[in-house]
Amino acid sequence: MAGAIEFVDGGTVTSPVGFLAGATYAGLKTFAEDKLDLCILFSELPCAAAGVFTKSAVRSSTVTLDRERLAQRISMRGLIVNAGIANTCVGEQGYIDAVEMTRLAAQKTGVSPEEILVCSTGIIGVELPMALIRGGLDQIELQGSGGPDMAKAIMTTDTRPKETAVTFELEGRTVHMGGVAKGSGMIHPNMATMLSFIATDAAVEPGFLQATLSEIADETYNMLSVDGDSSTNDTVLVLANGAAGNSPVSAGSPEADTFVEALRTVCTHLTRELARDGEGASHLIVVDVAGATDTADARLAARTIASSNLVKSAVYGTDPNWGRLLMAVGRSGAAAEEEKIDLFINGVCIMEAGKPIPFHRDAVVALMRQPEVTFRLNLNLGDGEATAWGCDLTEEYVIINSAYTT
Amino acid sequence: MAGAIEFVDGGTVTSPVGFLAGATYAGLKTFAEDKLDLCILFSELPCAAAGVFTKSAVRSSTVTLDRERLAQRISMRGLIVNAGIANTCVGEQGYIDAVEMTRLAAQKTGVSPEEILVCSTGIIGVELPMALIRGGLDQIELQGSGGPDMAKAIMTTDTRPKETAVTFELEGRTVHMGGVAKGSGMIHPNMATMLSFIATDAAVEPGFLQATLSEIADETYNMLSVDGDSSTNDTVLVLANGAAGNSPVSAGSPEADTFVEALRTVCTHLTRELARDGEGASHLIVVDVAGATDTADARLAARTIASSNLVKSAVYGTDPNWGRLLMAVGRSGAAAEEEKIDLFINGVCIMEAGKPIPFHRDAVVALMRQPEVTFRLNLNLGDGEATAWGCDLTEEYVIINSAYTT
Repeated sequence: MAGAIEFVDGGTVTSPVGFLAGATYAGLKTFAEDKLDLCILFSELPCAAAGVFTKSAVRSSTVTLDRERLAQRISMRGLIVNAGIANTCVGEQGYIDAVEMTRLAAQKTGVSPEEILVCSTGIIGVELPMALIRGGLDQIELQGSGGPDMAKAIMTTDTRPKETAVTFELEGRTVHMGGVAKGSGMIHPNMATMLSFIATDAAVEPGFLQATLSEIADETYNMLSVDGDSSTNDTVLVLANGAAGNSPVSAGSPEADTFVEALRTVCTHLTRELARDGEGASHLIVVDVAGATDTADARLAARTIASSNLVKSAVYGTDPNWGRLLMAVGRSGAAAEEEKIDLFINGVCIMEAGKPIPFHRDAVVALMRQPEVTFRLNLNLGDGEATAWGCDLTEEYVIINSAYTT
Repeated sequence: MAGAIEFVDGGTVTSPVGFLAGATYAGLKTFAEDKLDLCILFSELPCAAAGVFTKSAVRSSTVTLDRERLAQRISMRGLIVNAGIANTCVGEQGYIDAVEMTRLAAQKTGVSPEEILVCSTGIIGVELPMALIRGGLDQIELQGSGGPDMAKAIMTTDTRPKETAVTFELEGRTVHMGGVAKGSGMIHPNMATMLSFIATDAAVEPGFLQATLSEIADETYNMLSVDGDSSTNDTVLVLANGAAGNSPVSAGSPEADTFVEALRTVCTHLTRELARDGEGASHLIVVDVAGATDTADARLAARTIASSNLVKSAVYGTDPNWGRLLMAVGRSGAAAEEEKIDLFINGVCIMEAGKPIPFHRDAVVALMRQPEVTFRLNLNLGDGEATAWGCDLTEEYVIINSAYTT
């Protein structure tokens, strides 16, 4: 039984006790000179750390370095992130610069470089201007109120920062968990230029933290699709510093379910915010699939629908074009039998046992004008369930992505 | 050694000897009242027949029926096609109407219904108005010059008909092969609302015809992507009536290579035309991948690039954004090593051994203004090669697909 999880008003990644953050404009985001583009998240105490990363064969050196650091299985103290340049496809210099970024952040915070993780997001194929990063770091002030600045500093084409925090109890102690995320374009399952950083003052056993993050990422970030493209840099990192004073949560703990539920709550919230802020998006699309043969099939069907350009275009046009949903399920690879499928749009039944039900078209169109459109499909074959999140495809998406410079 | 294959000026599906076609406006294309929407292709002689179909789990009854008919392994005499309504997701009535369409076409042409194949394309979830089809059939006149009308009658959102024919020699006899195709939106590997009909006066052994079509479809139609969505109705059918008088081509024939090359030529031409006419497209995109570990990997990489919304948007914006190509290769699932990849845009080397080469940006942008943009990647890992075709993503695509009615 999971305990109550409550959202914190104005919550962010520095809501948990003992976390500081700070950001500056170092000059990397050439497309937005007035915005923050370099930041540090720092914990006053050593942290258990976990990460999940892009599965792309072409990846940033930051991903390579972070994987190495996490494999050491030592405590971490913080992370440094820049936006504007991805530090990807620049040959060996990429790894050298990634190491240098952690060295600079470690120097500033008085810890060892091995205790620092690093992420970059932005344009591919351009070397990091390390002089700007060195200069920028001098200006960063770490503060307990620094979360909102960090949420802004990691943005690229995002139109708004994404941050949240929750509070819950472990062994009667109040615990906090907060996070930030950036995304917008190039977002797809397998973690596409999506960065998310989560901090908690819970004490957590590192192996359990990693297993839990991997499981929850499959349910949340990996069920998110903005444009079907994956990135070279996608990363989710969690730092748990134990400042709450609970005994470390592990797989066998009575409190394990509560911790898992808290992480699910934070990740789901950030995933929804990422989908809602997809490039050019005017609608959040939620696809709930039930009755699939198994979870894998449910995920396949839900993700395929949420990723379909034709479904996304129909949502933009508030067109209850259920034929496109059936088409997407059909090609998804998930087991499906047309004559068993039930389909609902924002709660209205459109198809039952594979047969279209006459519906009040104008009413459904009106429902689809709401900022959130939910498609619910029951395949009526088994117990597999999954949810995927996406956004509609608009002219604005094309304009943004035909103009964004190399 | 394949003999010479020559394109026929004004060639179409009725260029081969003994094939007649005719079309009419039956009233099914409600979105375009002045257009043809029902047609028949008929052979004066019995034909060897072969087909490849959508792999979607949700498919039209026409696909079910055609599969059954081809499995009988008897000769075929023709096919009937309507555009406007897909005859999909209408329960049991779909199959009943598909059978009825073949019965009506058989009646008109004086053959048996079992000798007729059938295809439909258009809106999903609406029953075929059989009275309109019956009435329309009366007006159809079958003629040896009917190919161009057939090419028009199968169109939905296509902006122009697609047809071609070639001529070649088998055993010293002149042979013809012609085809028509329709596509535009919802086109992806696995044959998405793409219809193509090919006729030849060559005599061909049916098993060899089917094997050859399956192989060539994997190289051509299945390497085509307009929007990543597959349809419920995709079908390619080939009819070979033997009017040329050659001895039937089979796997062991000395002429087998020539026949295979002719079919490849016709299918490649139609595939390029389909890509070029993708919904809202302003550029044809050709992706040549070489040096992959094997053919499967080469196809995966080429198709992923041609399907990427970010690559497609960049082509629309004539932006030589090679980072997106690397991103697409990375996530494709094909084996790739960044430090080995060479990349060319319209013949200009942009990256060598994973390192960006300084290029004259304005010159490459100017090259990308041409109607055809070719990306060539060498992964330098093995001998796998493949080509994929696609088109750019434009505001027009979104407008078309947010307005097209359920």
